[in-house]
Amino acid sequence: MDIKTYLSRKKDIVDKALDKLVPPAKTFPASVHEAMRYSLFAGGKRVRPILAIAAAEALGANTAGILPIAGSLELIHTYSLIHDDLPAMDDDDFRRGRPTCHRKYGEAIAILAGDGLLNMAFEVLSAPGRQEGLSADRRLAIIREISMASGAFGMVGGQVVDMESEGREIDIPTLEYIHTRKTGALIRAAVRVGALYSRAGKRQFTALTHYGELVGLAFQIADDILDITGKQEELGKDVGSDLKKGKKTFPSFYGLEESRRRASEVADKAIESLKDFDRKAGPLRELAKYIVNRVH
Amino acid sequence: MDIKTYLSRKKDIVDKALDKLVPPAKTFPASVHEAMRYSLFAGGKRVRPILAIAAAEALGANTAGILPIAGSLELIHTYSLIHDDLPAMDDDDFRRGRPTCHRKYGEAIAILAGDGLLNMAFEVLSAPGRQEGLSADRRLAIIREISMASGAFGMVGGQVVDMESEGREIDIPTLEYIHTRKTGALIRAAVRVGALYSRAGKRQFTALTHYGELVGLAFQIADDILDITGKQEELGKDVGSDLKKGKKTFPSFYGLEESRRRASEVADKAIESLKDFDRKAGPLRELAKYIVNRVH
Repeated sequence: MDIKTYLSRKKDIVDKALDKLVPPAKTFPASVHEAMRYSLFAGGKRVRPILAIAAAEALGANTAGILPIAGSLELIHTYSLIHDDLPAMDDDDFRRGRPTCHRKYGEAIAILAGDGLLNMAFEVLSAPGRQEGLSADRRLAIIREISMASGAFGMVGGQVVDMESEGREIDIPTLEYIHTRKTGALIRAAVRVGALYSRAGKRQFTALTHYGELVGLAFQIADDILDITGKQEELGKDVGSDLKKGKKTFPSFYGLEESRRRASEVADKAIESLKDFDRKAGPLRELAKYIVNRVH
Repeated sequence: MDIKTYLSRKKDIVDKALDKLVPPAKTFPASVHEAMRYSLFAGGKRVRPILAIAAAEALGANTAGILPIAGSLELIHTYSLIHDDLPAMDDDDFRRGRPTCHRKYGEAIAILAGDGLLNMAFEVLSAPGRQEGLSADRRLAIIREISMASGAFGMVGGQVVDMESEGREIDIPTLEYIHTRKTGALIRAAVRVGALYSRAGKRQFTALTHYGELVGLAFQIADDILDITGKQEELGKDVGSDLKKGKKTFPSFYGLEESRRRASEVADKAIESLKDFDRKAGPLRELAKYIVNRVH
Protein backbone atom coordinates (compact mmCIF):
# COMPACT_ATOMS: atom_id res chain seq x y z
CA MET A 1 0.00 0.00 0.00
CA ASP A 2 1.45 3.39 -0.88
CA ILE A 3 1.62 6.03 1.82
CA LYS A 4 -1.12 8.23 0.34
CA THR A 5 -3.58 5.35 0.39
CA TYR A 6 -2.45 4.43 3.89
CA LEU A 7 -2.95 8.01 5.12
CA SER A 8 -6.34 8.33 3.50
CA ARG A 9 -7.60 5.02 4.95
CA LYS A 10 -6.34 5.82 8.43
CA LYS A 11 -7.80 9.31 8.24
CA ASP A 12 -11.22 7.80 7.53
CA ILE A 13 -10.88 5.46 10.49
CA VAL A 14 -9.82 8.29 12.79
CA ASP A 15 -12.63 10.54 11.55
CA LYS A 16 -15.20 7.84 12.30
CA ALA A 17 -13.72 7.30 15.76
CA LEU A 18 -13.80 11.06 16.47
CA ASP A 19 -17.39 11.25 15.33
CA LYS A 20 -18.28 8.66 17.96
CA LEU A 21 -16.18 10.22 20.71
CA VAL A 22 -17.64 13.71 20.47
CA PRO A 23 -21.31 14.36 21.33
CA PRO A 24 -23.62 15.36 18.44
CA ALA A 25 -23.66 19.08 17.58
CA LYS A 26 -27.18 19.46 18.95
CA THR A 27 -26.23 18.21 22.42
CA PHE A 28 -27.13 20.83 25.01
CA PRO A 29 -25.56 23.37 25.24
CA ALA A 30 -25.53 23.24 21.45
CA SER A 31 -23.37 26.29 20.71
CA VAL A 32 -20.26 24.83 22.30
CA HIS A 33 -20.76 21.32 20.93
CA GLU A 34 -21.32 22.72 17.45
CA ALA A 35 -18.16 24.83 17.74
CA MET A 36 -16.14 21.85 18.97
CA ARG A 37 -17.27 19.82 15.97
CA TYR A 38 -16.78 22.71 13.56
CA SER A 39 -13.08 22.92 14.40
CA LEU A 40 -12.57 19.20 14.87
CA PHE A 41 -13.98 18.38 11.43
CA ALA A 42 -12.33 21.20 9.53
CA GLY A 43 -10.27 18.95 7.28
CA GLY A 44 -7.33 18.15 9.53
CA LYS A 45 -4.95 15.51 8.21
CA ARG A 46 -4.98 13.59 11.53
CA VAL A 47 -1.18 13.38 11.55
CA ARG A 48 -0.95 12.80 15.32
CA PRO A 49 -3.57 10.03 15.56
CA ILE A 50 -2.07 8.32 12.52
CA LEU A 51 1.41 8.47 14.03
CA ALA A 52 0.08 6.84 17.21
CA ILE A 53 -1.62 4.09 15.20
CA ALA A 54 1.43 3.54 12.98
CA ALA A 55 3.72 3.31 16.03
CA ALA A 56 1.39 0.76 17.61
CA GLU A 57 1.31 -1.21 14.35
CA ALA A 58 5.09 -1.14 14.13
CA LEU A 59 5.09 -3.33 17.25
CA GLY A 60 2.38 -5.59 15.90
CA ALA A 61 -0.48 -4.48 18.11
CA ASN A 62 -4.11 -4.80 17.16
CA THR A 63 -4.94 -1.14 16.76
CA ALA A 64 -8.73 -1.07 17.21
CA GLY A 65 -8.35 -0.30 20.92
CA ILE A 66 -6.00 2.61 20.31
CA LEU A 67 -8.59 4.71 18.47
CA PRO A 68 -9.91 6.58 21.53
CA ILE A 69 -6.32 7.38 22.52
CA ALA A 70 -5.45 8.44 18.98
CA GLY A 71 -8.63 10.53 18.88
CA SER A 72 -7.75 12.27 22.13
CA LEU A 73 -4.53 13.53 20.49
CA GLU A 74 -6.63 15.20 17.81
CA LEU A 75 -8.96 16.71 20.44
CA ILE A 76 -5.91 18.29 22.08
CA HIS A 77 -4.42 19.41 18.77
CA THR A 78 -7.73 21.06 17.84
CA TYR A 79 -8.06 22.78 21.23
CA SER A 80 -4.60 24.26 20.76
CA LEU A 81 -5.43 25.54 17.26
CA ILE A 82 -8.64 27.21 18.49
CA HIS A 83 -6.88 28.98 21.35
CA ASP A 84 -3.81 29.91 19.27
CA ASP A 85 -6.04 31.53 16.63
CA LEU A 86 -7.78 33.84 19.15
CA PRO A 87 -7.46 37.63 18.69
CA ALA A 88 -5.39 37.91 21.87
CA MET A 89 -2.98 35.30 20.51
CA ASP A 90 -2.11 34.85 16.81
CA ASP A 91 -5.31 36.61 15.68
CA ASP A 92 -5.96 34.41 12.67
CA ASP A 93 -9.19 34.74 10.70
CA PHE A 94 -8.80 31.65 8.56
CA ARG A 95 -7.65 28.12 9.14
CA ARG A 96 -7.76 25.43 6.46
CA GLY A 97 -9.64 27.83 4.21
CA ARG A 98 -12.54 28.39 6.65
CA PRO A 99 -13.22 31.09 9.24
CA THR A 100 -11.52 30.26 12.53
CA CYS A 101 -13.67 29.14 15.46
CA HIS A 102 -13.90 32.60 17.06
CA ARG A 103 -14.74 34.22 13.71
CA LYS A 104 -17.61 31.81 13.34
CA TYR A 105 -18.89 31.48 16.92
CA GLY A 106 -17.43 34.44 18.78
CA GLU A 107 -14.52 34.56 21.17
CA ALA A 108 -16.31 33.30 24.28
CA ILE A 109 -17.60 30.13 22.64
CA ALA A 110 -14.22 29.58 20.97
CA ILE A 111 -12.41 29.74 24.32
CA LEU A 112 -14.96 27.37 25.83
CA ALA A 113 -14.92 25.00 22.83
CA GLY A 114 -11.15 24.75 23.28
CA ASP A 115 -11.57 24.12 27.00
CA GLY A 116 -14.25 21.54 26.25
CA LEU A 117 -12.02 19.67 23.80
CA LEU A 118 -9.08 19.66 26.20
CA ASN A 119 -11.23 18.30 29.02
CA MET A 120 -12.80 15.80 26.67
CA ALA A 121 -9.41 14.32 25.83
CA PHE A 122 -9.02 13.35 29.48
CA GLU A 123 -12.65 12.20 29.73
CA VAL A 124 -11.92 9.82 26.86
CA LEU A 125 -8.55 8.66 28.16
CA SER A 126 -10.04 7.79 31.55
CA ALA A 127 -13.36 6.37 30.29
CA PRO A 128 -14.11 2.91 31.60
CA GLY A 129 -14.07 0.01 29.16
CA ARG A 130 -12.88 1.90 26.14
CA GLN A 131 -9.39 0.53 25.83
CA GLU A 132 -9.87 -3.11 26.58
CA GLY A 133 -6.79 -5.13 27.24
CA LEU A 134 -4.87 -2.05 28.30
CA SER A 135 -3.82 -2.07 31.96
CA ALA A 136 -4.83 0.84 34.18
CA ASP A 137 -1.14 1.53 34.84
CA ARG A 138 -0.48 1.90 31.14
CA ARG A 139 -3.51 4.13 30.72
CA LEU A 140 -2.20 6.39 33.48
CA ALA A 141 1.18 6.53 31.75
CA ILE A 142 -0.59 7.58 28.54
CA ILE A 143 -2.51 10.32 30.35
CA ARG A 144 0.73 11.53 31.92
CA GLU A 145 2.45 11.54 28.53
CA ILE A 146 -0.30 13.52 26.81
CA SER A 147 -0.89 16.04 29.62
CA MET A 148 2.84 16.80 29.88
CA ALA A 149 3.02 17.35 26.10
CA SER A 150 0.00 19.62 26.21
CA GLY A 151 0.80 21.69 29.32
CA ALA A 152 3.16 24.47 30.35
CA PHE A 153 6.28 22.39 29.67
CA GLY A 154 4.90 21.44 26.27
CA MET A 155 2.51 23.15 23.88
CA VAL A 156 1.38 25.90 26.29
CA GLY A 157 5.02 26.83 26.95
CA GLY A 158 5.81 26.78 23.23
CA GLN A 159 2.93 29.10 22.43
CA VAL A 160 3.98 31.50 25.22
CA VAL A 161 7.53 31.79 23.88
CA ASP A 162 6.33 31.95 20.27
CA MET A 163 4.04 34.87 21.07
CA GLU A 164 6.63 36.66 23.16
CA SER A 165 9.14 36.29 20.31
CA GLU A 166 6.95 37.87 17.65
CA GLY A 167 8.73 40.74 15.93
CA ARG A 168 11.80 40.29 18.14
CA GLU A 169 15.25 39.04 17.31
CA ILE A 170 15.53 35.54 18.68
CA ASP A 171 18.40 33.07 18.66
CA ILE A 172 18.44 29.52 17.35
CA PRO A 173 17.99 27.85 20.78
CA THR A 174 14.80 29.90 21.27
CA LEU A 175 13.54 28.84 17.83
CA GLU A 176 14.27 25.24 18.78
CA TYR A 177 12.48 25.66 22.10
CA ILE A 178 9.38 26.94 20.31
CA HIS A 179 9.42 24.16 17.74
CA THR A 180 10.05 21.28 20.13
CA ARG A 181 7.24 22.48 22.43
CA LYS A 182 4.63 23.95 20.12
CA THR A 183 4.61 21.23 17.45
CA GLY A 184 7.18 18.69 18.53
CA ALA A 185 5.80 17.79 21.94
CA LEU A 186 2.46 16.35 20.80
CA ILE A 187 3.99 14.57 17.79
CA ARG A 188 6.55 12.94 20.09
CA ALA A 189 3.77 12.06 22.54
CA ALA A 190 1.69 10.55 19.72
CA VAL A 191 4.47 8.12 18.81
CA ARG A 192 5.17 7.36 22.47
CA VAL A 193 1.54 6.59 23.37
CA GLY A 194 1.43 4.26 20.37
CA ALA A 195 4.51 2.57 21.82
CA LEU A 196 2.99 2.45 25.33
CA TYR A 197 -0.20 1.00 23.93
CA SER A 198 1.77 -1.78 22.21
CA ARG A 199 3.82 -2.58 25.32
CA ALA A 200 7.11 -1.51 23.73
CA GLY A 201 10.24 -2.77 25.42
CA LYS A 202 12.72 -0.25 26.75
CA ARG A 203 14.92 -0.18 23.63
CA GLN A 204 11.93 -0.03 21.31
CA PHE A 205 10.48 2.81 23.36
CA THR A 206 13.74 4.77 23.17
CA ALA A 207 14.00 4.20 19.41
CA LEU A 208 10.39 5.30 18.83
CA THR A 209 10.87 8.36 21.05
CA HIS A 210 13.87 9.31 18.93
CA TYR A 211 11.82 8.77 15.78
CA GLY A 212 9.02 10.95 17.18
CA GLU A 213 11.38 13.81 18.00
CA LEU A 214 12.99 13.73 14.56
CA VAL A 215 9.70 13.48 12.70
CA GLY A 216 8.37 16.40 14.75
CA LEU A 217 11.39 18.45 13.72
CA ALA A 218 11.10 17.45 10.05
CA PHE A 219 7.41 18.34 10.17
CA GLN A 220 8.17 21.79 11.56
CA ILE A 221 10.91 22.58 9.04
CA ALA A 222 8.59 21.47 6.24
CA ASP A 223 5.81 23.66 7.63
CA ASP A 224 8.11 26.68 7.74
CA ILE A 225 9.19 26.08 4.14
CA LEU A 226 5.61 25.65 2.95
CA ASP A 227 4.67 28.94 4.61
CA ILE A 228 6.97 30.56 2.02
CA THR A 229 6.63 28.33 -1.03
CA GLY A 230 3.20 26.73 -0.63
CA LYS A 231 0.05 27.55 -2.52
CA GLN A 232 -2.74 29.24 -0.58
CA GLU A 233 -5.32 26.61 -1.54
CA GLU A 234 -3.07 23.88 -0.19
CA LEU A 235 -2.22 25.69 3.02
CA GLY A 236 -5.72 27.01 3.70
CA LYS A 237 -4.12 30.14 5.09
CA ASP A 238 -2.18 33.09 3.74
CA VAL A 239 1.20 32.31 2.22
CA GLY A 240 3.92 34.17 4.05
CA SER A 241 1.86 34.64 7.21
CA ASP A 242 4.90 33.86 9.40
CA LEU A 243 6.92 36.54 7.62
CA LYS A 244 4.11 39.08 7.93
CA LYS A 245 3.98 38.52 11.68
CA GLY A 246 7.74 38.91 11.94
CA LYS A 247 8.05 35.30 13.03
CA LYS A 248 11.47 33.75 12.82
CA THR A 249 11.44 30.37 11.12
CA PHE A 250 13.97 27.81 9.89
CA PRO A 251 14.29 29.45 6.47
CA SER A 252 14.86 32.87 8.05
CA PHE A 253 17.92 31.46 9.82
CA TYR A 254 19.21 29.00 7.25
CA GLY A 255 17.65 29.98 3.92
CA LEU A 256 15.34 27.83 1.83
CA GLU A 257 17.89 25.49 0.28
CA GLU A 258 19.66 24.67 3.53
CA SER A 259 16.28 24.20 5.26
CA ARG A 260 15.26 21.69 2.57
CA ARG A 261 18.54 19.85 2.99
CA ARG A 262 18.07 19.73 6.77
CA ALA A 263 14.51 18.48 6.47
CA SER A 264 15.71 15.54 4.37
CA GLU A 265 18.61 14.86 6.69
CA VAL A 266 16.32 14.80 9.74
CA ALA A 267 13.83 12.50 7.98
CA ASP A 268 16.69 10.14 7.09
CA LYS A 269 17.76 10.07 10.73
CA ALA A 270 14.18 9.32 11.78
CA ILE A 271 14.13 6.33 9.44
CA GLU A 272 17.58 5.25 10.67
CA SER A 273 16.27 5.21 14.27
CA LEU A 274 13.89 2.42 13.22
CA LYS A 275 16.69 0.16 11.92
CA ASP A 276 15.88 -2.65 14.40
CA PHE A 277 12.21 -2.73 13.41
CA ASP A 278 10.85 -5.05 10.74
CA ARG A 279 8.54 -4.25 7.84
CA LYS A 280 5.63 -3.51 10.19
CA ALA A 281 7.37 -0.15 10.71
CA GLY A 282 7.01 0.52 6.98
CA PRO A 283 4.29 3.17 7.38
CA LEU A 284 6.40 5.06 9.95
CA ARG A 285 9.32 5.09 7.51
CA GLU A 286 7.12 6.20 4.62
CA LEU A 287 5.55 8.91 6.78
CA ALA A 288 8.96 10.44 7.48
CA LYS A 289 9.69 10.54 3.76
CA TYR A 290 6.27 11.90 2.91
CA ILE A 291 6.58 14.83 5.31
CA VAL A 292 9.72 16.15 3.65
CA ASN A 293 8.77 15.21 0.09
CA ARG A 294 6.06 17.87 0.25
CA VAL A 295 8.75 20.58 0.18
CA HIS A 296 10.92 19.27 -2.63
CA MET B 1 -11.99 21.71 66.94
CA ASP B 2 -14.36 24.39 65.68
CA ILE B 3 -14.98 24.66 61.98
CA LYS B 4 -13.08 27.93 61.51
CA THR B 5 -9.94 26.43 63.01
CA TYR B 6 -10.45 23.29 60.92
CA LEU B 7 -10.81 25.32 57.72
CA SER B 8 -7.80 27.45 58.47
CA ARG B 9 -5.58 24.45 59.26
CA LYS B 10 -6.66 22.58 56.15
CA LYS B 11 -6.21 25.67 54.02
CA ASP B 12 -2.59 25.92 55.19
CA ILE B 13 -2.01 22.27 54.34
CA VAL B 14 -3.58 22.67 50.88
CA ASP B 15 -1.60 25.87 50.22
CA LYS B 16 1.65 24.10 51.04
CA ALA B 17 0.71 21.18 48.80
CA LEU B 18 -0.15 23.54 45.94
CA ASP B 19 3.13 25.37 46.37
CA LYS B 20 4.94 22.06 45.82
CA LEU B 21 2.77 20.97 42.89
CA VAL B 22 3.20 24.11 40.80
CA PRO B 23 6.62 25.05 39.38
CA PRO B 24 8.29 28.20 40.81
CA ALA B 25 7.23 31.49 39.20
CA LYS B 26 10.64 31.90 37.57
CA THR B 27 10.40 28.59 35.71
CA PHE B 28 10.82 29.18 31.97
CA PRO B 29 8.63 30.50 30.38
CA ALA B 30 8.28 32.72 33.43
CA SER B 31 5.31 34.85 32.34
CA VAL B 32 2.89 31.95 32.28
CA HIS B 33 4.18 30.32 35.46
CA GLU B 34 4.00 33.65 37.28
CA ALA B 35 0.43 34.17 36.06
CA MET B 36 -0.58 30.67 37.11
CA ARG B 37 0.76 31.29 40.61
CA TYR B 38 -0.72 34.79 40.78
CA SER B 39 -4.22 33.44 40.35
CA LEU B 40 -3.67 30.25 42.31
CA PHE B 41 -2.42 32.13 45.37
CA ALA B 42 -4.96 34.94 45.29
CA GLY B 43 -6.53 34.09 48.63
CA GLY B 44 -8.91 31.32 47.65
CA LYS B 45 -10.60 29.54 50.53
CA ARG B 46 -9.75 26.08 49.08
CA VAL B 47 -13.34 24.88 49.54
CA ARG B 48 -13.04 22.08 46.98
CA PRO B 49 -9.76 20.58 48.23
CA ILE B 50 -11.02 20.76 51.82
CA LEU B 51 -14.26 19.00 50.87
CA ALA B 52 -12.24 16.21 49.25
CA ILE B 53 -10.07 15.87 52.35
CA ALA B 54 -13.04 15.99 54.73
CA ALA B 55 -14.89 13.34 52.69
CA ALA B 56 -11.82 11.09 52.79
CA GLU B 57 -11.52 11.67 56.55
CA ALA B 58 -15.19 10.83 57.04
CA LEU B 59 -14.30 7.29 55.93
CA GLY B 60 -11.24 7.16 58.11
CA ALA B 61 -8.57 7.40 55.44
CA ASN B 62 -5.11 8.74 56.07
CA THR B 63 -5.32 11.92 54.03
CA ALA B 64 -1.66 12.70 53.29
CA GLY B 65 -1.88 10.92 49.94
CA ILE B 66 -4.95 12.82 48.86
CA LEU B 67 -3.22 16.20 48.76
CA PRO B 68 -2.18 16.08 45.09
CA ILE B 69 -5.73 15.08 44.15
CA ALA B 70 -7.19 17.82 46.36
CA GLY B 71 -4.72 20.27 44.85
CA SER B 72 -5.73 19.35 41.33
CA LEU B 73 -9.31 20.40 42.14
CA GLU B 74 -8.00 23.86 43.01
CA LEU B 75 -5.93 23.99 39.81
CA ILE B 76 -9.11 23.35 37.84
CA HIS B 77 -11.16 25.80 39.89
CA THR B 78 -8.52 28.49 39.29
CA TYR B 79 -8.34 27.78 35.55
CA SER B 80 -12.11 28.24 35.35
CA LEU B 81 -11.99 31.55 37.22
CA ILE B 82 -9.25 32.90 34.93
CA HIS B 83 -11.14 31.99 31.76
CA ASP B 84 -14.53 33.13 33.11
CA ASP B 85 -13.08 36.55 33.98
CA LEU B 86 -11.80 37.18 30.42
CA PRO B 87 -13.16 40.19 28.49
CA ALA B 88 -14.93 37.89 26.01
CA MET B 89 -16.66 36.13 28.92
CA ASP B 90 -17.72 37.83 32.16
CA ASP B 91 -15.24 40.71 31.66
CA ASP B 92 -14.30 41.10 35.32
CA ASP B 93 -11.48 43.42 36.34
CA PHE B 94 -11.22 42.34 39.96
CA ARG B 95 -11.32 39.05 41.77
CA ARG B 96 -10.77 38.72 45.51
CA GLY B 97 -9.80 42.39 45.62
CA ARG B 98 -6.96 42.10 43.10
CA PRO B 99 -6.78 42.69 39.36
CA THR B 100 -7.88 39.60 37.45
CA CYS B 101 -5.25 37.55 35.64
CA HIS B 102 -5.80 39.19 32.24
CA ARG B 103 -5.75 42.69 33.78
CA LYS B 104 -2.36 41.91 35.29
CA TYR B 105 -0.73 39.80 32.56
CA GLY B 106 -2.76 40.46 29.41
CA GLU B 107 -5.34 38.29 27.74
CA ALA B 108 -3.01 35.94 25.91
CA ILE B 109 -1.06 34.96 29.01
CA ALA B 110 -4.30 34.64 30.98
CA ILE B 111 -5.77 32.21 28.44
CA LEU B 112 -2.54 30.22 28.46
CA ALA B 113 -2.22 30.30 32.26
CA GLY B 114 -5.72 28.81 32.42
CA ASP B 115 -4.80 26.18 29.86
CA GLY B 116 -1.60 25.45 31.77
CA LEU B 117 -3.47 24.96 35.06
CA LEU B 118 -6.06 22.68 33.46
CA ASN B 119 -3.37 20.53 31.88
CA MET B 120 -1.41 20.55 35.13
CA ALA B 121 -4.35 19.04 37.00
CA PHE B 122 -4.11 15.97 34.77
CA GLU B 123 -0.30 15.94 34.93
CA VAL B 124 -0.62 15.77 38.73
CA LEU B 125 -3.42 13.18 38.74
CA SER B 126 -1.43 10.86 36.47
CA ALA B 127 2.01 11.48 38.00
CA PRO B 128 3.80 8.30 39.05
CA GLY B 129 4.32 7.65 42.74
CA ARG B 130 2.36 10.59 44.07
CA GLN B 131 -0.67 8.80 45.47
CA GLU B 132 0.87 5.76 47.08
CA GLY B 133 -1.48 3.01 48.08
CA LEU B 134 -4.04 4.14 45.54
CA SER B 135 -4.69 1.61 42.78
CA ALA B 136 -4.30 2.67 39.16
CA ASP B 137 -7.96 1.79 38.56
CA ARG B 138 -9.04 4.15 41.31
CA ARG B 139 -6.78 6.88 39.98
CA LEU B 140 -8.38 6.52 36.55
CA ALA B 141 -11.83 6.76 38.14
CA ILE B 142 -10.71 9.99 39.86
CA ILE B 143 -9.45 11.44 36.57
CA ARG B 144 -12.72 10.50 34.90
CA GLU B 145 -14.70 12.12 37.72
CA ILE B 146 -12.76 15.38 37.59
CA SER B 147 -12.61 15.68 33.80
CA MET B 148 -16.36 15.09 33.47
CA ALA B 149 -17.04 17.75 36.11
CA SER B 150 -14.75 20.20 34.35
CA GLY B 151 -15.79 19.60 30.73
CA ALA B 152 -18.69 20.40 28.42
CA PHE B 153 -21.19 18.43 30.53
CA GLY B 154 -19.93 20.19 33.65
CA MET B 155 -18.32 23.56 34.24
CA VAL B 156 -17.75 24.44 30.57
CA GLY B 157 -21.42 23.74 29.81
CA GLY B 158 -22.52 25.76 32.85
CA GLN B 159 -20.46 28.76 31.77
CA VAL B 160 -21.86 28.54 28.21
CA VAL B 161 -25.47 28.62 29.42
CA ASP B 162 -24.70 31.27 32.04
CA MET B 163 -23.22 33.57 29.41
CA GLU B 164 -25.98 32.92 26.91
CA SER B 165 -28.56 33.72 29.62
CA GLU B 166 -27.14 37.11 30.51
CA GLY B 167 -29.77 39.83 30.25
CA ARG B 168 -32.40 37.32 29.12
CA GLU B 169 -35.43 35.96 30.87
CA ILE B 170 -34.61 32.44 31.99
CA ASP B 171 -36.70 29.85 33.78
CA ILE B 172 -35.91 28.01 36.99
CA PRO B 173 -34.73 24.79 35.27
CA THR B 174 -32.19 26.86 33.33
CA LEU B 175 -31.00 28.53 36.54
CA GLU B 176 -30.64 25.07 38.08
CA TYR B 177 -28.72 23.83 35.06
CA ILE B 178 -26.27 26.72 35.37
CA HIS B 179 -25.79 26.21 39.09
CA THR B 180 -25.40 22.45 39.05
CA ARG B 181 -22.82 22.66 36.25
CA LYS B 182 -20.94 25.88 36.91
CA THR B 183 -20.42 25.53 40.66
CA GLY B 184 -22.10 22.28 41.62
CA ALA B 185 -20.22 19.88 39.37
CA LEU B 186 -16.74 20.42 40.82
CA ILE B 187 -18.01 20.54 44.42
CA ARG B 188 -19.80 17.23 43.86
CA ALA B 189 -16.69 15.82 42.23
CA ALA B 190 -14.55 16.99 45.16
CA VAL B 191 -16.64 15.00 47.62
CA ARG B 192 -16.75 12.00 45.29
CA VAL B 193 -13.00 11.86 44.71
CA GLY B 194 -12.54 11.99 48.49
CA ALA B 195 -14.90 9.01 48.68
CA LEU B 196 -13.08 7.19 45.85
CA TYR B 197 -9.75 7.83 47.53
CA SER B 198 -11.07 6.29 50.76
CA ARG B 199 -12.52 3.24 49.02
CA ALA B 200 -16.11 4.12 49.93
CA GLY B 201 -18.61 1.30 49.68
CA LYS B 202 -21.54 1.70 47.31
CA ARG B 203 -23.96 3.06 49.93
CA GLN B 204 -21.36 5.41 51.37
CA PHE B 205 -20.53 6.65 47.88
CA THR B 206 -24.18 7.35 47.13
CA ALA B 207 -24.65 9.16 50.45
CA LEU B 208 -21.55 11.31 49.90
CA THR B 209 -22.62 12.08 46.33
CA HIS B 210 -25.93 13.28 47.69
CA TYR B 211 -24.14 15.35 50.30
CA GLY B 212 -21.91 16.86 47.58
CA GLU B 213 -24.87 17.85 45.42
CA LEU B 214 -26.71 19.48 48.31
CA VAL B 215 -23.66 21.31 49.61
CA GLY B 216 -22.98 22.59 46.09
CA LEU B 217 -26.52 23.92 45.92
CA ALA B 218 -26.32 25.51 49.38
CA PHE B 219 -23.01 27.09 48.39
CA GLN B 220 -24.53 28.60 45.26
CA ILE B 221 -27.62 29.99 47.01
CA ALA B 222 -25.35 31.52 49.67
CA ASP B 223 -23.15 33.03 46.96
CA ASP B 224 -26.15 34.58 45.24
CA ILE B 225 -27.36 36.07 48.54
CA LEU B 226 -23.91 37.44 49.40
CA ASP B 227 -23.74 39.12 45.99
CA ILE B 228 -26.61 41.29 47.24
CA THR B 229 -26.00 41.60 50.97
CA GLY B 230 -22.23 41.08 51.30
CA LYS B 231 -19.60 43.70 51.98
CA GLN B 232 -17.22 44.51 49.16
CA GLU B 233 -14.12 43.87 51.26
CA GLU B 234 -15.41 40.38 52.10
CA LEU B 235 -16.41 39.52 48.55
CA GLY B 236 -13.35 41.02 46.88
CA LYS B 237 -15.61 42.07 44.02
CA ASP B 238 -18.38 44.57 43.46
CA VAL B 239 -21.56 44.04 45.47
CA GLY B 240 -24.50 43.53 43.15
CA SER B 241 -22.35 42.48 40.19
CA ASP B 242 -24.85 39.76 39.22
CA LEU B 243 -27.67 42.31 39.18
CA LYS B 244 -25.63 44.74 37.09
CA LYS B 245 -25.01 42.05 34.50
CA GLY B 246 -28.70 41.18 34.42
CA LYS B 247 -27.92 37.74 35.81
CA LYS B 248 -30.81 35.82 37.25
CA THR B 249 -30.02 34.35 40.66
CA PHE B 250 -31.87 32.53 43.43
CA PRO B 251 -32.95 35.77 45.14
CA SER B 252 -34.27 37.17 41.86
CA PHE B 253 -36.64 34.21 41.62
CA TYR B 254 -37.46 33.62 45.28
CA GLY B 255 -36.55 36.81 47.12
CA LEU B 256 -33.95 37.14 49.86
CA GLU B 257 -35.89 35.67 52.75
CA GLU B 258 -37.07 32.59 50.90
CA SER B 259 -33.54 32.08 49.50
CA ARG B 260 -32.14 32.15 53.04
CA ARG B 261 -34.75 29.64 54.14
CA ARG B 262 -33.92 27.35 51.23
CA ALA B 263 -30.19 27.56 51.88
CA SER B 264 -30.76 26.35 55.45
CA GLU B 265 -33.15 23.63 54.31
CA VAL B 266 -30.65 22.34 51.75
CA ALA B 267 -27.82 22.37 54.30
CA ASP B 268 -30.00 20.40 56.72
CA LYS B 269 -30.67 17.82 54.02
CA ALA B 270 -26.94 17.59 53.31
CA ILE B 271 -26.31 16.83 56.97
CA GLU B 272 -29.20 14.34 56.99
CA SER B 273 -27.62 12.44 54.09
CA LEU B 274 -24.67 11.67 56.40
CA LYS B 275 -26.86 10.04 59.05
CA ASP B 276 -25.11 6.65 58.75
CA PHE B 277 -21.65 8.19 59.24
CA ASP B 278 -19.97 8.47 62.63
CA ARG B 279 -18.23 11.45 64.20
CA LYS B 280 -15.43 11.33 61.62
CA ALA B 281 -17.96 13.04 59.33
CA GLY B 282 -18.14 15.94 61.81
CA PRO B 283 -16.21 18.38 59.59
CA LEU B 284 -18.51 17.64 56.62
CA ARG B 285 -21.54 18.39 58.80
CA GLU B 286 -19.99 21.57 60.17
CA LEU B 287 -19.02 22.67 56.66
CA ALA B 288 -22.63 22.46 55.50
CA LYS B 289 -23.72 24.63 58.43
CA TYR B 290 -20.87 27.07 57.93
CA ILE B 291 -21.74 27.70 54.28
CA VAL B 292 -25.26 28.87 55.08
CA ASN B 293 -24.43 30.61 58.37
CA ARG B 294 -22.51 33.19 56.34
CA VAL B 295 -25.82 34.53 54.99
CA HIS B 296 -27.83 34.72 58.22
